Amino acid sequence: MTQIKNIGVFTSGGDAPGMNAAIRAVVRAAMYYGIEVTGIRRGYDGMGKGDFFTMNRKSVSNIIQRGGTILKTARCDEFRTPEGRKAAYEHLVKNKVDALVAIGGDGTFTGAKVFGSEYDIPVVGLPGTIDNDLVGTDFTIGYDTAINTVVDAVDKIRDTAESHDRLFIVEVMGRDSGLIALRTGIATGAEAILIPESKTGLEGLLNRLEFGRKDKTSRIVIVAEGEDAGGAFEVGRLVQEKFPNYDTRISILGHIQRGGAPSCMDRVLASRVGAAAVEALRDGHRNEMIGLINGEIAYTPFEHAIKHHQGIDPNMIKLVEMLSM
Amino acid sequence: MTQIKNIGVFTSGGDAPGMNAAIRAVVRAAMYYGIEVTGIRRGYDGMGKGDFFTMNRKSVSNIIQRGGTILKTARCDEFRTPEGRKAAYEHLVKNKVDALVAIGGDGTFTGAKVFGSEYDIPVVGLPGTIDNDLVGTDFTIGYDTAINTVVDAVDKIRDTAESHDRLFIVEVMGRDSGLIALRTGIATGAEAILIPESKTGLEGLLNRLEFGRKDKTSRIVIVAEGEDAGGAFEVGRLVQEKFPNYDTRISILGHIQRGGAPSCMDRVLASRVGAAAVEALRDGHRNEMIGLINGEIAYTPFEHAIKHHQGIDPNMIKLVEMLSM
Amino acid sequence: MTQIKNIGVFTSGGDAPGMNAAIRAVVRAAMYYGIEVTGIRRGYDGMGKGDFFTMNRKSVSNIIQRGGTILKTARCDEFRTPEGRKAAYEHLVKNKVDALVAIGGDGTFTGAKVFGSEYDIPVVGLPGTIDNDLVGTDFTIGYDTAINTVVDAVDKIRDTAESHDRLFIVEVMGRDSGLIALRTGIATGAEAILIPESKTGLEGLLNRLEFGRKDKTSRIVIVAEGEDAGGAFEVGRLVQEKFPNYDTRISILGHIQRGGAPSCMDRVLASRVGAAAVEALRDGHRNEMIGLINGEIAYTPFEHAIKHHQGIDPNMIKLVEMLSM
Amino acid sequence: MTQIKNIGVFTSGGDAPGMNAAIRAVVRAAMYYGIEVTGIRRGYDGMGKGDFFTMNRKSVSNIIQRGGTILKTARCDEFRTPEGRKAAYEHLVKNKVDALVAIGGDGTFTGAKVFGSEYDIPVVGLPGTIDNDLVGTDFTIGYDTAINTVVDAVDKIRDTAESHDRLFIVEVMGRDSGLIALRTGIATGAEAILIPESKTGLEGLLNRLEFGRKDKTSRIVIVAEGEDAGGAFEVGRLVQEKFPNYDTRISILGHIQRGGAPSCMDRVLASRVGAAAVEALRDGHRNEMIGLINGEIAYTPFEHAIKHHQGIDPNMIKLVEMLSM
Repeated sequence: MTQIKNIGVFTSGGDAPGMNAAIRAVVRAAMYYGIEVTGIRRGYDGMGKGDFFTMNRKSVSNIIQRGGTILKTARCDEFRTPEGRKAAYEHLVKNKVDALVAIGGDGTFTGAKVFGSEYDIPVVGLPGTIDNDLVGTDFTIGYDTAINTVVDAVDKIRDTAESHDRLFIVEVMGRDSGLIALRTGIATGAEAILIPESKTGLEGLLNRLEFGRKDKTSRIVIVAEGEDAGGAFEVGRLVQEKFPNYDTRISILGHIQRGGAPSCMDRVLASRVGAAAVEALRDGHRNEMIGLINGEIAYTPFEHAIKHHQGIDPNMIKLVEMLSM
Repeated sequence: MTQIKNIGVFTSGGDAPGMNAAIRAVVRAAMYYGIEVTGIRRGYDGMGKGDFFTMNRKSVSNIIQRGGTILKTARCDEFRTPEGRKAAYEHLVKNKVDALVAIGGDGTFTGAKVFGSEYDIPVVGLPGTIDNDLVGTDFTIGYDTAINTVVDAVDKIRDTAESHDRLFIVEVMGRDSGLIALRTGIATGAEAILIPESKTGLEGLLNRLEFGRKDKTSRIVIVAEGEDAGGAFEVGRLVQEKFPNYDTRISILGHIQRGGAPSCMDRVLASRVGAAAVEALRDGHRNEMIGLINGEIAYTPFEHAIKHHQGIDPNMIKLVEMLSM
Repeated sequence: MTQIKNIGVFTSGGDAPGMNAAIRAVVRAAMYYGIEVTGIRRGYDGMGKGDFFTMNRKSVSNIIQRGGTILKTARCDEFRTPEGRKAAYEHLVKNKVDALVAIGGDGTFTGAKVFGSEYDIPVVGLPGTIDNDLVGTDFTIGYDTAINTVVDAVDKIRDTAESHDRLFIVEVMGRDSGLIALRTGIATGAEAILIPESKTGLEGLLNRLEFGRKDKTSRIVIVAEGEDAGGAFEVGRLVQEKFPNYDTRISILGHIQRGGAPSCMDRVLASRVGAAAVEALRDGHRNEMIGLINGEIAYTPFEHAIKHHQGIDPNMIKLVEMLSM
Repeated sequence: MTQIKNIGVFTSGGDAPGMNAAIRAVVRAAMYYGIEVTGIRRGYDGMGKGDFFTMNRKSVSNIIQRGGTILKTARCDEFRTPEGRKAAYEHLVKNKVDALVAIGGDGTFTGAKVFGSEYDIPVVGLPGTIDNDLVGTDFTIGYDTAINTVVDAVDKIRDTAESHDRLFIVEVMGRDSGLIALRTGIATGAEAILIPESKTGLEGLLNRLEFGRKDKTSRIVIVAEGEDAGGAFEVGRLVQEKFPNYDTRISILGHIQRGGAPSCMDRVLASRVGAAAVEALRDGHRNEMIGLINGEIAYTPFEHAIKHHQGIDPNMIKLVEMLSM
């Protein structure tokens, strides 16, 4: 067992609901094991500038239900340079931080991996991103909340779509991943989903509009922002061009998907992996992301978590189509 | 007392949460007074096509909490022609409908006024629009729900704005009216609001960004879609140009503002004016909108309701600025 | 114009959503006018113990959307004694607090009135209570949020009531006032409401169950906790005894009615009266509650606000019955 | 492959959010495979009385987001008798229903198992219960929504607990299972949870109140209704007796936990297992519950699903304690 005395914790990349629950779990679990915790503000940027503060039990009181991250987050170009990382390491040494918990996604772990290979400091990661696009965990912190936010928004849009007999093209987040679109498409009874992982979404949609049920009074199409037809506006343009009789509208859900009180599942996930991260550091783990697979804590090397992405189950794409017929 | 035997009810124009509660109130109040009710689908369009059905107590069971309108709504160009209105009148006569309750906004009442002047059928209106821009009622049905939806969305955006120290330009509905922007601007602690009724919003915003508090970590600006600087994208462009150091983001809330379960106040308002509309027809009222002013039922001639708009209280604009300092 | 230099602000009595928005408005408006603000914790209890702290713009950042009160609240028996009030006054003098804003209800203003008559310090009050039972304001801060919480809860209960064909007796807050029951009864399509202000609720309910529509599949009855038949359990017992064939269930909504993010209207109300309180003190007002009547700021002497209560509009009681037929 | 021509679908036992999404999936998937669907109202009760109707695509339009069950549910004593089951079977034969999908919990599958052993009709089940207490599926339909409802309610209670420095004993559903209490306890940062599966909850709570952190300003305790100390009122009594200085309050969340729009995850789960149930019947499955284990469709004999219950992970109980310190 490594003798960890002071864990630094930070959030990085896009914020996600449940990050605060994860921070709380790291702090409280560390206290439980008699380890001190240093909060690092604004991710790698604050690490490079020494923007540190000592955290205690009270620092994380009453935050489990808050969206966003009390540690803030930022992009940081300096950390991509050796000088930037050196400055960060020196601040850690000066503050006696001897281990790190990095909460974020792909970019966060890429930085952590490089840092961990250059300097002798154990780093573990927690999957904090609404996109759910990391391997090594069934779900990422924030995903469940984000899909509930989307579903709630589309339910509202459905009300007005039904009242006006309209076709709505709704764009959801997911630059490289259709996982938000996939589950919310099923959950909102969408006519079709267009996602980066599938090239036939647009064609399928146009086919259905041409040959499908004619008695439907409203239709919802969910488009992931990264799908290759060009986003909701372009899809809408194509649909309107080909089907001028449809009363088509566009809605870009945008940043509301990042905020809000985390769902129960996100809080539980964040709490479990947050506590497990502290225990992992005590047990000598490093350069690994701590996730939850099939209900059990799982450890995945950063290298593996970064390179691969959760695939899309083709049965679930088929399900969208089958159930919206 | 006019002997009304069969009231036709319809919704027209943009849908608004609470329209179903209003329909329910009209139907149930009519039943209470022994009057039959004919549902007319898709507003003036369905009236011109005779898309009618008999409603009873059960037709409106369990709809008080639903967004949208079970009677649907549509635009109708035919009704602007004498032939269109003649066709509508003939369908009403054939179906023995001898009075009408029109639920909608400006355009709805314009149609109702013309129709009521050409044909001898009493028509009263209920203010159903999220914009709150009608005189003759303190609030329109749907406004309270819409502003709660906006506030909920901006609270979520605030979470991510705080986490990233960002400035968000949020566009809300209101083509001719800043009333949604005004109240939601106060309620979300917005830095500034830009509305059609005021020409100095953009200038004020730029001034505040230049000379105001520098220690603020996040800022929200609420823009009504109809304000004259050109909408959220244009405002965002100007801010980014002048203040490139701000991390500025745009969010267009769009159609989520039209849907969702109506708030308690919208349901109560809809229920009160819906029942009052039936009583007004029995009492011989016609060509009037039934609203609620200072807690009391108020009757306003269509002509007056159409021509004037609720103004903006300058004290409330000042309040936005004072409290976000 | 009185030269106010330092305003003390506190919350007292039961907490209500929107109290934080009111505190924020008092602090920010005072700053705007160059007045300092002292936060007093736990109401009169903290005043008597000198639990004071200096507030600035940042003290109230990002609290407009939070339920509860950051100043906390408590009951205080000492303040009912002359010694208790003397201690409080001495702490105020020592801290150079020369005016007070008291946020709360009946009990709060009773204390303020006595205090203001014994010591020469201007005190104004803001109506902060979910019960809406004060004269001098159309709505109290917290009422709109509370009725939305009730409506949301009853909508959920309706889902299960419909599925099982059940009769639900739902108890809502309101020890002396049926105003929460009244509006939520209308908004949820309740069969009947039982409130302290009316003695015939139970009888009316039993009559309706005996002689009313038999084809209804679910029924909701809203009972104010203070109504004289003895609360939801007693009403449920009587209904079950007389109508054993109904599948009757009880639900006590309880303290969820006090919490949650305030609604848009509550935040706007709190912001308006909070800013107006500061201006009122500057203008020499004292011993008055600052409310909003017909959209305008209104000043009501504590004495009057305490002694009278908002009545119940009999037309609205009738409306419940008419629309749930 | 069995040649199924007409599937009967029904819901039984306590209703759960997502049942409508499951019904929709069964109907739409059956249509997709050219199978007819018969809706059976009020579970086994309606089956015994022949309360059947033909369902089509439109029968399940716009219900995916609704709480409750459009097929209604009821208890049925007759079905426990051979005569009751005989009547039910005769109605099925008369209506040419040649397979069944039963949506419910323990009791539902017990009935299905007996029925399937007496009569030659294939029956499969879908796990529809908020309690999550069935083996054969990671989560039951309704559980995720219910825990979000609890978390939302406790967040509200936390607001008022914080404001008043109170200890709240909150009772959640779970007569035989602490799974709702467990996850919501973690997610709300509860001080302790009391559940049927553990005998030491009360003792642990009293210990923590005696020896734990004294600087906590509010405390939440989650009690499953079935825990052996006697429910929230009895726990509250014991705490007040032993710790009179705590300001202790009780809240029974009750039936709000059964209603509301289903969460995204519940809709996806219901859609997946609903479609899988139709495919299972086509593939010759019978007397099995269709669940989701580790993201994959899983088939569990009714006998097994009934006899065993999901256990409680002791690590998660420990987590509650560790993180609320």
